[in-house]
Amino acid sequence: MKSRIKLVENMQFIGTADSGHGVVMDAPPSSGGNNSGSKPSELLLMAFGGCSGMDVISILRKKKQDVTNFEMNVNGEAPDTHPRSFTDIHIEYVVTGRNISEDAVQRAIELSLGKYCMVGTTIGKGAKITHSFKVIQEG
Amino acid sequence: MKSRIKLVENMQFIGTADSGHGVVMDAPPSSGGNNSGSKPSELLLMAFGGCSGMDVISILRKKKQDVTNFEMNVNGEAPDTHPRSFTDIHIEYVVTGRNISEDAVQRAIELSLGKYCMVGTTIGKGAKITHSFKVIQEG
Repeated sequence: MKSRIKLVENMQFIGTADSGHGVVMDAPPSSGGNNSGSKPSELLLMAFGGCSGMDVISILRKKKQDVTNFEMNVNGEAPDTHPRSFTDIHIEYVVTGRNISEDAVQRAIELSLGKYCMVGTTIGKGAKITHSFKVIQEG
Repeated sequence: MKSRIKLVENMQFIGTADSGHGVVMDAPPSSGGNNSGSKPSELLLMAFGGCSGMDVISILRKKKQDVTNFEMNVNGEAPDTHPRSFTDIHIEYVVTGRNISEDAVQRAIELSLGKYCMVGTTIGKGAKITHSFKVIQEG
């Protein structure tokens, strides 16, 4: 898997990869940037959420779960001193739908985090990943 | 650091984080998506490149290096079998400019990968990270 990252100006970079889509990255003003795009470290957390989210929704659809909304909150903690790395990452899954099986949700999350999600398995060797989920049943 | 990832439709997700910028993620058709956005795993590689790129360009500017173009190629390798994770990630830095000091480039990369780049230190505990650089001197 290949990606290319090119400096545009100041601290703004554009990343592109095999899929052909571009992503703008920038630093906040406090780090000399203009906040014109995502911070790389938050991109890491979003990549983790997207990766696991795709697994979980695929599995829930196969299990014929009637999901009407699906969101994740991914929070990462890192120390303030260098060399910094994420030490703890928590992912919360919020599944809304009709007659959602909590067991199905739990199992889908376990399969994603334990087996399918490549971003999770890569970062999970360095950071402690914890998870929780909430099911909102619609009437 | 907080991020939120929301399912839009099919396998398309939007991630947003503290900086306020949104990132579209999608799976390729071979995985049931519509390729409307970056794959999460390639986002991880781009995040790494952006993170280290910001460090390196900042350091080179402090060292008064006259950089006219700066790019990185980040390649990740992962086995085909589950549980998959990136095993090897190579980052190549390509610095173009006038009278660029190769020692300054080498030192900037070492500082980034060894100390400053949080994405690199997080994923480097699971994947083996290697690097190389190329300096293109302009006349």
